[in-house]
Amino acid sequence: MIVDKLIRRINALKAPIVVGLDPRLDQIPVYLLEENRMKGDTPSKSTARAILAFNKKIIDAIHDIVPAVKPQIAMYEEWGTNGVTAYHSTVSYAREKGLIVIGDVKRGDIASTAESYSKAYLSEADNEKRADFITINPYMGFDSVEPYLSDCCKYDKGLFVLVKTSNPGSRDLQDLLMLNNKPLYTHVAGLVEKWGEPFIGEHGYSAVGAVIGATHPKDALEIRNIMPHTFFLIPGYGVQGGSGKDLKPLWRTAYGAIVNNSRGITGAYQTKKYHAPDAEFHLAARAAVLDMKTDLEI
Amino acid sequence: MIVDKLIRRINALKAPIVVGLDPRLDQIPVYLLEENRMKGDTPSKSTARAILAFNKKIIDAIHDIVPAVKPQIAMYEEWGTNGVTAYHSTVSYAREKGLIVIGDVKRGDIASTAESYSKAYLSEADNEKRADFITINPYMGFDSVEPYLSDCCKYDKGLFVLVKTSNPGSRDLQDLLMLNNKPLYTHVAGLVEKWGEPFIGEHGYSAVGAVIGATHPKDALEIRNIMPHTFFLIPGYGVQGGSGKDLKPLWRTAYGAIVNNSRGITGAYQTKKYHAPDAEFHLAARAAVLDMKTDLEI
Repeated sequence: MIVDKLIRRINALKAPIVVGLDPRLDQIPVYLLEENRMKGDTPSKSTARAILAFNKKIIDAIHDIVPAVKPQIAMYEEWGTNGVTAYHSTVSYAREKGLIVIGDVKRGDIASTAESYSKAYLSEADNEKRADFITINPYMGFDSVEPYLSDCCKYDKGLFVLVKTSNPGSRDLQDLLMLNNKPLYTHVAGLVEKWGEPFIGEHGYSAVGAVIGATHPKDALEIRNIMPHTFFLIPGYGVQGGSGKDLKPLWRTAYGAIVNNSRGITGAYQTKKYHAPDAEFHLAARAAVLDMKTDLEI
Repeated sequence: MIVDKLIRRINALKAPIVVGLDPRLDQIPVYLLEENRMKGDTPSKSTARAILAFNKKIIDAIHDIVPAVKPQIAMYEEWGTNGVTAYHSTVSYAREKGLIVIGDVKRGDIASTAESYSKAYLSEADNEKRADFITINPYMGFDSVEPYLSDCCKYDKGLFVLVKTSNPGSRDLQDLLMLNNKPLYTHVAGLVEKWGEPFIGEHGYSAVGAVIGATHPKDALEIRNIMPHTFFLIPGYGVQGGSGKDLKPLWRTAYGAIVNNSRGITGAYQTKKYHAPDAEFHLAARAAVLDMKTDLEI
């Protein structure tokens, strides 16, 4: 199962790390933008080409030390169909290099619509362009999740369902107290654990995972008790405030989670700590990954 | 403001109706698929071309009797970049014909990501390809909504935020009872009403609307009391079970809402009631709209 493959890779590399590929224009070195500007291109076409070139250099620099990458599709959709092509090409390049790909698409809609999204981002046709996992939103309930589950089963794919996100606004709905005096996210955690029951792999974790923000370490521990068989995707490390110290209580005997870092890796060359010339942005990214690995060590 | 333009159009046409453009392969007449199959095309390219041709005939047949259309983007994303191009072309064709376009994208993500989605689907650049309204998901809270609000203000656009959806799974989270013994959707309703306060137009409704399923007429009335200034987008009419009788208590003195029908219109020619030869699918669609108008009359 894909979740077992992910866990094996994490353990082999001792790196519960996924590198977020969220290409922002201000992170892409000017030389790359210029190199990828072809005569007759629209701005979005040349930008999309530069994004792909940027991602490829990052992937080349980190594919032997991390198990996975996570492209955030919004930053590709922003550039229209050229951007969507760059998303697909990023997914297939990363898979070619042996990386597991988490498509951060956060879709959520009624069943018949979910079927279309699953075909678009998860299922078999044009397989090399499809991610191994995608993220989804649970607000519309079980029938909005079910079509992905059946595709996960058919095509050996996985999901990460939003439970407790890393952003400040997560308190607006997710922290609301229910009748039993517990926050809503604990209920969602219970649902996701139940949805994932039929898909538990050899390491004891389900192919139906959960998104749990690193910015709420205490909540994360409480959630772990509700979801003993759920693998976590943890955003919010680094720039958003989460640290390895916060996460250690979560690891238990093994990791059981993968921590995302986007800007902290891909934009490392622009920071004081990892500052590097534009042409060495990928080397700064690798250095930042290695430090993150140390920070997260069990 | 765009919400006033929508309300004026609804009143002028006496039609609180939005036609959902959710192109499914089994709804597109075979002759259209064949006509649009060009030599050397990939299957997705010719399908996307047929989808656009289908949408254009529907739009031509109904643009003078309804104020708006709502393409569901999943059914376009399903066909990759060719599908996304068909989505953009559908949006711009509908706008050219004077229709208001609601892009049913249901995005929801942290603020920096929401900025990218807003650029992709709502904001000014390449304006003719951008919708007038988009739907969004509130699970991640206010900071995931804020970037759209500022673009709504800048570019005179609007939103419909999911509150109580039409599908059976809506009970899994949205109906959960909170500490005050009221369901979660009442809290979300209160939040959305508050988020919309700065954007109230001349008819007393905000450019920040809400999605409220037609399949829960009693809940809808309760929600109306919580959100007196929120315009409703109502899915679930027709095939999903909602009817005009259910909706009438909602209309109050004026409509204050727009009701979506997708399959019931675009697939009308395949039903017993509106059965028509393939080449007259658009005429069946028009007939179904006219009946829906009568059903919804105040």
